[in-house]
Amino acid sequence: MLRFLVINGPNMDVLGRRERGIYGSATLEDLEALCVRWGETNGVYVECLQSNHEGDLIEMVHRGSEEFQGVVMNAAGYGHTSVALRDAVSACSVPVVEVHMTNVASRETFRHRSLLTPVVRGLVMGLGIKGYVLALQALKDMAEGGV
Amino acid sequence: MLRFLVINGPNMDVLGRRERGIYGSATLEDLEALCVRWGETNGVYVECLQSNHEGDLIEMVHRGSEEFQGVVMNAAGYGHTSVALRDAVSACSVPVVEVHMTNVASRETFRHRSLLTPVVRGLVMGLGIKGYVLALQALKDMAEGGV
Amino acid sequence: MLRFLVINGPNMDVLGRRERGIYGSATLEDLEALCVRWGETNGVYVECLQSNHEGDLIEMVHRGSEEFQGVVMNAAGYGHTSVALRDAVSACSVPVVEVHMTNVASRETFRHRSLLTPVVRGLVMGLGIKGYVLALQALKDMAEGGV
Amino acid sequence: MLRFLVINGPNMDVLGRRERGIYGSATLEDLEALCVRWGETNGVYVECLQSNHEGDLIEMVHRGSEEFQGVVMNAAGYGHTSVALRDAVSACSVPVVEVHMTNVASRETFRHRSLLTPVVRGLVMGLGIKGYVLALQALKDMAEGGV
Amino acid sequence: MLRFLVINGPNMDVLGRRERGIYGSATLEDLEALCVRWGETNGVYVECLQSNHEGDLIEMVHRGSEEFQGVVMNAAGYGHTSVALRDAVSACSVPVVEVHMTNVASRETFRHRSLLTPVVRGLVMGLGIKGYVLALQALKDMAEGGV
Amino acid sequence: MLRFLVINGPNMDVLGRRERGIYGSATLEDLEALCVRWGETNGVYVECLQSNHEGDLIEMVHRGSEEFQGVVMNAAGYGHTSVALRDAVSACSVPVVEVHMTNVASRETFRHRSLLTPVVRGLVMGLGIKGYVLALQALKDMAEGGV
Amino acid sequence: MLRFLVINGPNMDVLGRRERGIYGSATLEDLEALCVRWGETNGVYVECLQSNHEGDLIEMVHRGSEEFQGVVMNAAGYGHTSVALRDAVSACSVPVVEVHMTNVASRETFRHRSLLTPVVRGLVMGLGIKGYVLALQALKDMAEGGV
Amino acid sequence: MLRFLVINGPNMDVLGRRERGIYGSATLEDLEALCVRWGETNGVYVECLQSNHEGDLIEMVHRGSEEFQGVVMNAAGYGHTSVALRDAVSACSVPVVEVHMTNVASRETFRHRSLLTPVVRGLVMGLGIKGYVLALQALKDMAEGGV
Amino acid sequence: MLRFLVINGPNMDVLGRRERGIYGSATLEDLEALCVRWGETNGVYVECLQSNHEGDLIEMVHRGSEEFQGVVMNAAGYGHTSVALRDAVSACSVPVVEVHMTNVASRETFRHRSLLTPVVRGLVMGLGIKGYVLALQALKDMAEGGV
Amino acid sequence: MLRFLVINGPNMDVLGRRERGIYGSATLEDLEALCVRWGETNGVYVECLQSNHEGDLIEMVHRGSEEFQGVVMNAAGYGHTSVALRDAVSACSVPVVEVHMTNVASRETFRHRSLLTPVVRGLVMGLGIKGYVLALQALKDMAEGGV
Amino acid sequence: MLRFLVINGPNMDVLGRRERGIYGSATLEDLEALCVRWGETNGVYVECLQSNHEGDLIEMVHRGSEEFQGVVMNAAGYGHTSVALRDAVSACSVPVVEVHMTNVASRETFRHRSLLTPVVRGLVMGLGIKGYVLALQALKDMAEGGV
Amino acid sequence: MLRFLVINGPNMDVLGRRERGIYGSATLEDLEALCVRWGETNGVYVECLQSNHEGDLIEMVHRGSEEFQGVVMNAAGYGHTSVALRDAVSACSVPVVEVHMTNVASRETFRHRSLLTPVVRGLVMGLGIKGYVLALQALKDMAEGGV
Repeated sequence: MLRFLVINGPNMDVLGRRERGIYGSATLEDLEALCVRWGETNGVYVECLQSNHEGDLIEMVHRGSEEFQGVVMNAAGYGHTSVALRDAVSACSVPVVEVHMTNVASRETFRHRSLLTPVVRGLVMGLGIKGYVLALQALKDMAEGGV
Repeated sequence: MLRFLVINGPNMDVLGRRERGIYGSATLEDLEALCVRWGETNGVYVECLQSNHEGDLIEMVHRGSEEFQGVVMNAAGYGHTSVALRDAVSACSVPVVEVHMTNVASRETFRHRSLLTPVVRGLVMGLGIKGYVLALQALKDMAEGGV
Repeated sequence: MLRFLVINGPNMDVLGRRERGIYGSATLEDLEALCVRWGETNGVYVECLQSNHEGDLIEMVHRGSEEFQGVVMNAAGYGHTSVALRDAVSACSVPVVEVHMTNVASRETFRHRSLLTPVVRGLVMGLGIKGYVLALQALKDMAEGGV
Repeated sequence: MLRFLVINGPNMDVLGRRERGIYGSATLEDLEALCVRWGETNGVYVECLQSNHEGDLIEMVHRGSEEFQGVVMNAAGYGHTSVALRDAVSACSVPVVEVHMTNVASRETFRHRSLLTPVVRGLVMGLGIKGYVLALQALKDMAEGGV
Repeated sequence: MLRFLVINGPNMDVLGRRERGIYGSATLEDLEALCVRWGETNGVYVECLQSNHEGDLIEMVHRGSEEFQGVVMNAAGYGHTSVALRDAVSACSVPVVEVHMTNVASRETFRHRSLLTPVVRGLVMGLGIKGYVLALQALKDMAEGGV
Repeated sequence: MLRFLVINGPNMDVLGRRERGIYGSATLEDLEALCVRWGETNGVYVECLQSNHEGDLIEMVHRGSEEFQGVVMNAAGYGHTSVALRDAVSACSVPVVEVHMTNVASRETFRHRSLLTPVVRGLVMGLGIKGYVLALQALKDMAEGGV
Repeated sequence: MLRFLVINGPNMDVLGRRERGIYGSATLEDLEALCVRWGETNGVYVECLQSNHEGDLIEMVHRGSEEFQGVVMNAAGYGHTSVALRDAVSACSVPVVEVHMTNVASRETFRHRSLLTPVVRGLVMGLGIKGYVLALQALKDMAEGGV
Repeated sequence: MLRFLVINGPNMDVLGRRERGIYGSATLEDLEALCVRWGETNGVYVECLQSNHEGDLIEMVHRGSEEFQGVVMNAAGYGHTSVALRDAVSACSVPVVEVHMTNVASRETFRHRSLLTPVVRGLVMGLGIKGYVLALQALKDMAEGGV
Repeated sequence: MLRFLVINGPNMDVLGRRERGIYGSATLEDLEALCVRWGETNGVYVECLQSNHEGDLIEMVHRGSEEFQGVVMNAAGYGHTSVALRDAVSACSVPVVEVHMTNVASRETFRHRSLLTPVVRGLVMGLGIKGYVLALQALKDMAEGGV
Repeated sequence: MLRFLVINGPNMDVLGRRERGIYGSATLEDLEALCVRWGETNGVYVECLQSNHEGDLIEMVHRGSEEFQGVVMNAAGYGHTSVALRDAVSACSVPVVEVHMTNVASRETFRHRSLLTPVVRGLVMGLGIKGYVLALQALKDMAEGGV
Repeated sequence: MLRFLVINGPNMDVLGRRERGIYGSATLEDLEALCVRWGETNGVYVECLQSNHEGDLIEMVHRGSEEFQGVVMNAAGYGHTSVALRDAVSACSVPVVEVHMTNVASRETFRHRSLLTPVVRGLVMGLGIKGYVLALQALKDMAEGGV
Repeated sequence: MLRFLVINGPNMDVLGRRERGIYGSATLEDLEALCVRWGETNGVYVECLQSNHEGDLIEMVHRGSEEFQGVVMNAAGYGHTSVALRDAVSACSVPVVEVHMTNVASRETFRHRSLLTPVVRGLVMGLGIKGYVLALQALKDMAEGGV
């Protein structure tokens, strides 16, 4: 059975509780439930993790590389600044698909560059929590031989 | 019945015939057939257009805005340079989802910036021709109330 | 009799139909009628052309150089990116006055630079469709010995 | 009766006496007479001021904001460097139209950026002293409901 | 008895009369009264000066250096552009505390850099006219041996 | 009773023990005692936290947003680099005042930009540990209707 | 028999009729005749095309790739701005030699960078219409095993 | 007896298990054993620590400053981005020698700048795990009066 | 009899009274006396002016252009920022020699660029108040046919 | 009889002995023989020089200017950095044609700019040692009245 | 027997005689003696060369490539500016280890970039003349199979 | 007796023979004779040297430092590029005055920065060969206690 890991980064634990004008009202729990439900429908084991600590995220990627067949990652603020996290993703032996809920290209300049993007397989951006499902679908297509 | 327009830009007419190491061996015909087939399966009318002319692409976006409920756009080389095309997309009254077959963030620097990205609804990148299907799915989710 | 050519660039064909908050509700037809009417009042033959194609605009400038005594030009999006159009304007043997309906200096950074401005005679910006009339007036002053 | 204020900045007091190859041979007196005459013809009270002092120009804009219905401003050298003057223009409650006699975009790089342009209503450039008359005409159009 | 000088720069004379959305409705008179009152309460002689002229501000700093024990300075627009004023502050033999009523870091890019900041003792920003009182308090702490 | 949270970032635990030429000889304990004492004098509950971990600081801001009426924050080194921390501050529902003990504008270039400053309410810089007291005073003024 | 394609870009149709101080007095017809004559002398079929349309140039390169053994290309203004044309050249399966009649390195800064140069085989610049003949000679050398 | 601390940063725990083409096949255990062995041979107590957490690394440097006579540091990804870690190193009262296993100057641009380098005593780069031994040797030379 | 004008800019009135480590202990009076004395020795009328007001300096240059045969100018802080003053110098019909008492190239970056330098005849820098005498000597050489 | 000088710069003496993947296997001797042979065939005296010393190259250009009718120059590494060599070329009274064996635009960024290119007559690049022959041919065309 | 070449660049001949605060009091003779002594102790033939001429250094590297098994290089000032020297090092067929006596990252900005570093095997910096010995040791480890 | 060394850099040996529009018609011999004559008149031994070799200039500065009391230096093209020469000047124990015959600030951008200027005592620019005499005079003033 395929196993995919969904990793969420800093401040995602307060999703839906603040700045709803930007991020919408769905909470982290809603988001994770959506991913797990997709897994159940599609016969894939989906595990969801979140942390505000850069070091934790690095270790989650290490774990994804060893125990899963694909990783969906929203590194939030760390994606724009963390070479350490990029190194972890670059060394990851399974495909990683990056997700941004919002269209970061239409926000502040410092959000336009993600250090992770050059080393991930693909990117889904601006499509809200539905973007996670599209990313999981893409991982499944890859695992089954497509893309 | 929902109507979506898929627009492909310059050099996409030689897709699969050159630089296969980068773009794969699927042709424009394969790509368009995939999109149309997705439409048939999902009850959506999908029309596919391609041009090497910037002016044609602008007019296709105008037409998309008036006759369709969503646009999937791969502007190829013009996406990096065309303010005129961006203005057309920005003025488009239906959602546009941008697609890049390859992960442009891992290629030449001049490909890192797309003038279109800040004015589209979302972006799917690096997932090959499957990315078009994910973009169509996202448009359908939006039309049905999601995202 | 003096002959002036008014050239409008990409997306000007949808003027007044989209993004009215920025560009107002006058259409291209209104704009062209205003220019022609000014010509009739002032004894000048005024011809108006529009295209979304960069190559067409280049050829319109060539024609302006050969058949008219002055050119009013709003290159829209191409003004920010087209060296080819600049070369056409630079080679034009009659005075060209550039017009922007909006104040582009208060908009996105990529609109601040017009490649055409260094090679035109003058610029009228931010004064809506009335700006075309001021530009025509300026051409008439030049032709009659002023400026 | 409409009242417009024409403000000229540093070195405009030697206009026509030096660097005639760039600025022509009309003097400040000629320029101001042209504006006043336009006012008399068009039923508008036009007052003309000049100073080489940045602080004076700021206070002229304050006065324009309180006692006039429009301001025509050629800030000359201060337009490229003065945040203080920009703040005055930005706070001005009547429309300001910026004028440059020459086409500054074809001169030294440091002249390409005017700090004032983003906060004025419009700009007329490269059309010599006739540009002042076009700017006054634009203010009149605005006051009478156009633009 | 301690003597502090409060210097306000260009456009501060119209404070509270324009752009209230940014600067609030307190006037320069209110601001200066607040400072003087703080002085009376705290046993400090406080004198307040304002000018729109860069040269005046330079000379006020010279005077502050010779006749006072501390200077509170809001150079407004000149703070972003004036090397001459910076030189005056740098040469000032008593501590200078810079004040900005608004948070300039969240406004236009050209406001992010103050040429004065590297040569002042401290900075209070974003706290409205109350910021002047905090700056005066800081000067008093310094004079009495703190900081 | 008002509740304010004082957050100190990395290396503040060795304050007063190293680089005294830059930071002075007061220790973190001195600094926190000063803040608590100010609280007691002014009838405000003041709690002080410190961590060298970016993730901890993010969670402290989350806590500040939920359990306090204001936050005083010295993010030290993380302020110059952390988008994640900025996102936490930006989402914080109570006012945050940033404090730097030294005048960072007169130090290395990479210290000149704080990612936090654009999203805080105010900034107090260069006034040593007294700056914390001024920031607390500012928060109290805000809570009581001022600023 | 070897077949080479000579492609000329925008404004080359007015060569020799304008800006002769820069480009000389030879016309496009002269230039093309020179190339054809060289072909006749050297036993090579030489075909010459020109267009002001970027899309046409892209399609000419596609045709060159399929029907010729080498391409000589002067993309004129599009060479400095067109990623789409670069993509066509990059995908071209036969050698392309770029030609500029003038020494663009001694002209405006925006002419210094050609997007095409990194993907062509060679470049001949500054040698007027004779440069086309040298480029054809180079293609012949390559086809015959040299270079 | 001399005491040296060897600190390794993020992703060094997977050394030798991934991206061997870049980093070789030696593991963290091999690297640490090499250092300890050098210590035994040279009569120096060598302790080795590793963490993926920036905050941990800061605290390790604090500990190095208090309990050791020298620190060898490979901050990996954090070296390129962490002002907080730099502040810790800068405040460290014993010499720090930075080590990079690879020649980072021949890799991606963002790896060319290390924020730590300006505040360490020396740097050894590109010499693999042997670089650690050279760094330890350099610390020993310093402690014994050399360098 | 030759007439030369020596113009000193902002803060030169406090020369010798502050920052003596940088500027030395000679006062403006000493400097001007030195210049006048040189004039008496060399049979040249030398007049010395100083102002802290940019507008005054502009008008002094105008006066220099009309009533003198040469100008020695130390614009101090305004030299780095004033386009208006540059325009005055550029329009000046007699030679201007710029003087800096200190070597500004070894000071802060913003002092490295003088807007005036490209439009003066020559520059003498880093040689203290003696530099004024060398500049006067150079003007005399020019007037007498040399240089 | 026409006399042309061929100058080769640093490291060209090891041509064909190292980095053959980039530069091919022809040696400097082969290259020079090719040039001399072309001269014999075309009735031109061709002399070939090489040096690793910048000063030698400058003096060779001086000699070319005095004793030859044209210079072919491959300055290799010095072309990217030497203002001194540029000054020599700029002062050269006979035409200079620059040659690069490889297409430097597709190599490292620091090779993209040649300080010499703006001051030479023409450039031949990317065509291997055959490029020298084309350059000699171009010089001959110039000498005989063409170009 | 292993043969290593130690190359020192410009101004190293006055080492220890000037700027001792930066470079220490050891002379070039001391430095070379240290290297030779290390060779004698370790059974390696070590030859030391120095020149102030860029061309000489290039030729020394050529010689190192042909007659030695490793090169230690301190190019001093040329390392920051010389593409020609970089080309020589890049073409060198034996490993090169770069040495800087001081920590150039803590000095002027123009010293931060070494053109050589990307093409050397390793770098030892900031460790004084001892750095040469460490570099020699590293070359020996490489020759014996390590690194 | 005072001894001053005058050093001239690359291409100065052809002074007066080429590009007279820029540099005038005086030759190096004229220039050196002028300096020597000044020395004879002023009781100073003046020696003049010139070289096109960077290494020679470095060694001339070394000699100047040891055998003379002051150096006048026109490094010509090397001044803009040579860190090695700057290091020599920086280490020079006697004052160096830099001379440029032309006003380099009004020429190409790459001439605006001299690497030498921050480390010389003073600069004389734009005053032709007379500038050498002023520089010698300045050195004499310094030696006699002035400046």
